Amino acid sequence: MQKKLQQLKELKLNCYNGDYLLNSEKTNDELIATELIAEIFKQLHKESKSFKSFNSGLAISIFRDNSTRTKFSFASAVNALGLGLEELDEVKSQIAHGETVRESANMISFLAQTIGIRDDMFLGEGNKYMREVSEAVAEGFEKGVLHNRPSVINLQCDIDHPTQTLADLLKLKDYFGSFENLKGKKLAMSWAYSPSYGKPLSVPQGIISLMTRFGMDVTLANPEGYGLIPDVIKQIKNYEGKFKIANSMEDAFKDADVVYPKSWAPFNVMQRRTDLLKKSDKDGLKELEKECLANNAKYKDWECDESKMKLTKNGEALYMHCLPADISGVSCKEGEVSKEVFEKYRIHTYQEASFKPFVIASMIFLTRMQNPVEKLEKILSR
Amino acid sequence: MQKKLQQLKELKLNCYNGDYLLNSEKTNDELIATELIAEIFKQLHKESKSFKSFNSGLAISIFRDNSTRTKFSFASAVNALGLGLEELDEVKSQIAHGETVRESANMISFLAQTIGIRDDMFLGEGNKYMREVSEAVAEGFEKGVLHNRPSVINLQCDIDHPTQTLADLLKLKDYFGSFENLKGKKLAMSWAYSPSYGKPLSVPQGIISLMTRFGMDVTLANPEGYGLIPDVIKQIKNYEGKFKIANSMEDAFKDADVVYPKSWAPFNVMQRRTDLLKKSDKDGLKELEKECLANNAKYKDWECDESKMKLTKNGEALYMHCLPADISGVSCKEGEVSKEVFEKYRIHTYQEASFKPFVIASMIFLTRMQNPVEKLEKILSR
Amino acid sequence: MQKKLQQLKELKLNCYNGDYLLNSEKTNDELIATELIAEIFKQLHKESKSFKSFNSGLAISIFRDNSTRTKFSFASAVNALGLGLEELDEVKSQIAHGETVRESANMISFLAQTIGIRDDMFLGEGNKYMREVSEAVAEGFEKGVLHNRPSVINLQCDIDHPTQTLADLLKLKDYFGSFENLKGKKLAMSWAYSPSYGKPLSVPQGIISLMTRFGMDVTLANPEGYGLIPDVIKQIKNYEGKFKIANSMEDAFKDADVVYPKSWAPFNVMQRRTDLLKKSDKDGLKELEKECLANNAKYKDWECDESKMKLTKNGEALYMHCLPADISGVSCKEGEVSKEVFEKYRIHTYQEASFKPFVIASMIFLTRMQNPVEKLEKILSR
Repeated sequence: MQKKLQQLKELKLNCYNGDYLLNSEKTNDELIATELIAEIFKQLHKESKSFKSFNSGLAISIFRDNSTRTKFSFASAVNALGLGLEELDEVKSQIAHGETVRESANMISFLAQTIGIRDDMFLGEGNKYMREVSEAVAEGFEKGVLHNRPSVINLQCDIDHPTQTLADLLKLKDYFGSFENLKGKKLAMSWAYSPSYGKPLSVPQGIISLMTRFGMDVTLANPEGYGLIPDVIKQIKNYEGKFKIANSMEDAFKDADVVYPKSWAPFNVMQRRTDLLKKSDKDGLKELEKECLANNAKYKDWECDESKMKLTKNGEALYMHCLPADISGVSCKEGEVSKEVFEKYRIHTYQEASFKPFVIASMIFLTRMQNPVEKLEKILSR
Repeated sequence: MQKKLQQLKELKLNCYNGDYLLNSEKTNDELIATELIAEIFKQLHKESKSFKSFNSGLAISIFRDNSTRTKFSFASAVNALGLGLEELDEVKSQIAHGETVRESANMISFLAQTIGIRDDMFLGEGNKYMREVSEAVAEGFEKGVLHNRPSVINLQCDIDHPTQTLADLLKLKDYFGSFENLKGKKLAMSWAYSPSYGKPLSVPQGIISLMTRFGMDVTLANPEGYGLIPDVIKQIKNYEGKFKIANSMEDAFKDADVVYPKSWAPFNVMQRRTDLLKKSDKDGLKELEKECLANNAKYKDWECDESKMKLTKNGEALYMHCLPADISGVSCKEGEVSKEVFEKYRIHTYQEASFKPFVIASMIFLTRMQNPVEKLEKILSR
Repeated sequence: MQKKLQQLKELKLNCYNGDYLLNSEKTNDELIATELIAEIFKQLHKESKSFKSFNSGLAISIFRDNSTRTKFSFASAVNALGLGLEELDEVKSQIAHGETVRESANMISFLAQTIGIRDDMFLGEGNKYMREVSEAVAEGFEKGVLHNRPSVINLQCDIDHPTQTLADLLKLKDYFGSFENLKGKKLAMSWAYSPSYGKPLSVPQGIISLMTRFGMDVTLANPEGYGLIPDVIKQIKNYEGKFKIANSMEDAFKDADVVYPKSWAPFNVMQRRTDLLKKSDKDGLKELEKECLANNAKYKDWECDESKMKLTKNGEALYMHCLPADISGVSCKEGEVSKEVFEKYRIHTYQEASFKPFVIASMIFLTRMQNPVEKLEKILSR
């Protein structure tokens, strides 16, 4: 841990009083700092040592989509940091009665240190909402309404899922030994069949962006019409790793060191869905779901099975998933991954997820501590 | 803060092992103590100093009406004091299955320090329910069932809304410089038009009672038939400040230092509504809502706009609201306040609200600490 | 308390890194240790002394049936121990979407110390589910996914209700003076009429098992067809106290020192109900409820009233109930107990319940502390 602390001291950080909304807005130093602190917190927890960093204060969560894992990861993180959790339930609360976001964001934040938001259902809406909350509390802080400037943490939006992908990156670092070792490693991010529909695009978008940035050679594969947000794809070209698009899971898997087969809804379906939802067009939504499921069904062979895994590097690529996976014959009839492949890598996917609470704690820590390295030294010397 | 502590020492307090159910039951000394401690807590929070006062224990909240602000204010207060929050959800819980209040109040209170209740929907019911809970836990404490006697805190009832009005009073003190400076200042509490119906009477009732008590000259204005509970009006006559009733928002606003335009349902409508709700008469309720909204619509000119604000002292009266306001053209087509007036005073209304968590913390502190001044000295010397 | 600590030192305990799923799986030493620690915690709380035992960590609750008392008892216990509470709401969460228990149990447990579960609706299912969760987190701990092995605490299942019955046992110890004094005392566990249906069998099963084990002479009485799980009855024969079955409440009450009249659903009804629920057969369920209520109605005279109480030892047996009781003329027209009898013993039933938070805290403490006695010594010396 002392070595990690040394590394941290050499990084240039500008996170205090800010948010964690998109990995693409963070410098490499800031991404690395987030990961190092997450690793330090995880190690402390393993040794039954506390990384409590606040005496009191609230952490607020706003879940505009269902969640088990992320909800418990957030709850775990804020508890370990010493914050109290309070969930904003928008259906029950007066926010459903026409309040402006600006006003209510301030009203809930008088003693808050951080606000975690999941809003991943509507293209063009989730990340925008997070920014509105952020601007509201920033104004409240400036004008003396709030004594602190709570940070807004993206717990999954329409564009990115930083808490997930940074947990994934820590798993990769752990698996291959170092960030350095990731350079040139081949990762296949592939669409996979699922009997459900409307899954967000943020995980594949976040994975291809973050992993190319850390020097991995990333191949994206999806059936025709299942593309991601074009702007995200454009951005990747600037990053260190190579990026290409393949036409099949098989192509993407060839010689891959890592595979990440996962279902998502096509970009254009998500756009139509957003429009229909805004109009509360229930019949239109049912029609779209039907059409979309019928279209998905054409690609049932996009399943990660043993034969496809054999195409990977020595047939032994690391299988990754953000969970829950649609496992053929277990959680559904036909799904993203065969029972055999999933079972082989099951504990790996659990470990992948186990980094998330510590990543979230790290993001809160970095955005709320004026001198994070100094504070960490104090924690380590307790 | 030392000066405030000195002031506190001179006050005669008898709050320990009691409740906070109505401002009218508290002595002037007790009201002033509540405000002074709230100010001390706010200052401590501003300086990032803890006012943690409990090592453990539960704070229970019972919300029989929707709430965002009060819920988060209560959550913030109890977290800062060191208590854990547990919400009693009556729909889910067995209380809905015929349990007596007496029994369940004890069953949830074994390790509780305080119980915050919002019950403002039914005339003659809300405050009564709070007293039933209070009697139940007092008996439990006497008979050795409970080791502590949790205090019951009124988070808004049918009669009063002490956490709101004491926050309002702190805003006024802050704005005009001292309690002394409030004497003779003119406050207009006026009904205002809203497209909704059934808003509680507790805020206007609480405002006119508390502010006359602190020496303000209060004018109440409402359309014919929109009167408040007669007993509350009667009581005010004993207080220090002058009190009169005007027939229009304009009349009330003339030369006012402070205006508080806010919608509420007429007393007799609330009575009929309570009867219908008790009978579960859904058709009757729909009919009443329709009738009431139609009646409201006659008074759409009861909007706080720039022309009416010009009637106030130098055209610059302080605009107050307990939030959320129905803002014309923002949260509704036509409402309580024009967009321009609200925007001018928006930050003021946020600051007004910002006192509430500290007022709640102060109420809990006063009702649960045997020697509040001594305890405060310990906190300040940490 | 020092005396209790001495007693504890002489007990052989093997609870660390285990669960608390059934009293029948615990040794006498372990049961006694649970009770002694609960008494120490209660005494500390009475003296306003903290028994905080964790610096941070989550306690997770999973309530698959409604609950007020147990929910607040669990919340109270974990708060006092220093843990943060996070409820898994299965309807909202993705667990409802086909996740395996194994996976989700790990996903919520990364920073968890304990998981409290209530699952008492389906015969053959509740305790089984608890074991699945337990196996899942045990595997996660072994494989390095989890840094701790959270204990699973049975907050009521289809077989047993250990937190309730151990609280009942503490009440009996308190009432009669010692465990020793319980030997030979006569307890009547009797079915009683209730206008509801489908109440779990776990309380009567748990009571007759635990109290015979502590040497009481237990008589079980129920109308024909209202028997308990046969395996539970079989097991009792090995215990120290006598056990017999009577045909009427009157028979059971004769000369009893303690009576526990309580409604439950017949074993075979619970089996049919479980089958129908699995098949989601709503019509079948309605039919069964109707049939069952009609059958219950034949036994309205199974009410604990003053004339039946006169049959008990000196007419002064202790009346017990796990609450809420169906009180004739109070919470229902005709129920388990008359108003007069209940009112006479009301405070006793409240005190009975007051042990529960401390029993739960004790179970968590014993399953999570490697050296519980050493830890207790530290707590007592604070």
